[in-house]
Amino acid sequence: MTYCIGLKLNNGLVFMSDTRTSAGVDNFATSKKMFTWNEPGERMITIMTAGNLATTQAMISLLEERSKTTEDRDPSILREATMFQVARLVGATLKEVIGETTNEGQLKQAQFSASIIVGGQIKGGKPTVFLVYPQGNFIEITDDTPFFQIGETKYGKPILVRAYDPEMSFEDALKLLIVSFDSTVKSNLSVGLPFDIQVYEADSFEIGTTRRIEESDAIYQAISSGWGDALKAAFQKLPAYKL
Amino acid sequence: MTYCIGLKLNNGLVFMSDTRTSAGVDNFATSKKMFTWNEPGERMITIMTAGNLATTQAMISLLEERSKTTEDRDPSILREATMFQVARLVGATLKEVIGETTNEGQLKQAQFSASIIVGGQIKGGKPTVFLVYPQGNFIEITDDTPFFQIGETKYGKPILVRAYDPEMSFEDALKLLIVSFDSTVKSNLSVGLPFDIQVYEADSFEIGTTRRIEESDAIYQAISSGWGDALKAAFQKLPAYKL
Repeated sequence: MTYCIGLKLNNGLVFMSDTRTSAGVDNFATSKKMFTWNEPGERMITIMTAGNLATTQAMISLLEERSKTTEDRDPSILREATMFQVARLVGATLKEVIGETTNEGQLKQAQFSASIIVGGQIKGGKPTVFLVYPQGNFIEITDDTPFFQIGETKYGKPILVRAYDPEMSFEDALKLLIVSFDSTVKSNLSVGLPFDIQVYEADSFEIGTTRRIEESDAIYQAISSGWGDALKAAFQKLPAYKL
Repeated sequence: MTYCIGLKLNNGLVFMSDTRTSAGVDNFATSKKMFTWNEPGERMITIMTAGNLATTQAMISLLEERSKTTEDRDPSILREATMFQVARLVGATLKEVIGETTNEGQLKQAQFSASIIVGGQIKGGKPTVFLVYPQGNFIEITDDTPFFQIGETKYGKPILVRAYDPEMSFEDALKLLIVSFDSTVKSNLSVGLPFDIQVYEADSFEIGTTRRIEESDAIYQAISSGWGDALKAAFQKLPAYKL
């Protein structure tokens, strides 16, 4: 599996993905799942992928190839006028790749399936994030649904639900995402370090801060062990359930 | 879905289950998922069920019926000499029920599937818990795996992993389970209050404290809202991830 989060704040967007890919416990590897396209001053688009690696790599390659030969080919992720159109392109490309691999009906299709988070900003529009389904359709982030998760989403959801605040700083948001990822890693082998993060400041049209967080990262370790201790301390302070 | 936990402490066992059953969002109801058999001074057996309600009710009814007419029928849950034999009986009964409903191959079988937690103590043995699979086989709780979850297990797992301690008191264990259930309820509609709890003290061979926790329960509300606040406070205290 995989774990990726795309989060919208008042200040901009934050993306985080793990890098573990596995086809069984004896066949796992590290693979980047976050991909960024940038025309400085004009657009910044980030895509994160979960699901069948052959499918998502083919989709990224198609988007990439088409973005490089814009004279010859349409549509291109660097040409679409709005983020909505970018999401449509991503959805169509994903559906195309899944369709090419599977002409054996719906049952087989599930195997080659994938989900995508695509976010960013194009001049004239606001920063936004879409969740693209394997069927090619998609939903957009809103104030009511201020984050999207793909992959192993359940372990890390409770803390997001409780601590997310649209006013929070990028640093607090990163801390929140790290806690959410750490809870997942502690409970599920199919999600693993290193993590990739990207912080996009609204209206900057620059890639912004990107970083790869390794297992040895001192702040990650401080947050991870600090969170364990903080949880235990918080837990102690709760009223007891008297018998 | 469902959420049930069976937990082993040095002092004994704690069981907790939700009561929501649903066949779609417009068809949900409250149904007990925790069942207890007791021969005071001799044995205490608790079963919790997750999965297809028709399957689990049929299984409980069979166990129940067979336990009441012990003269006529074998095997009986009140006759087996050890908890291991009880788990075998539960597994065989579960497999029998699933098999009766489904003679249409494995694909159909998944629909009528169920998982069971069975725990307790029989004189001469130690308190223990088993997780029974739909195939009828089962695993036993150990010091390395001190709790079993069935149903919607993921949301509530991180806090169990972090705060469980075999030395903890029953009251702390209940608090832990309530936090785990509350995290699940906040993230997933298919798990809902009221919750059933049972505390079994080792070597008592009595049912022990049982209670139904309703949404209006003051301590539950204090733990639930207290946990939200405690999480936020704990989160604030973590070191920031500097950009």
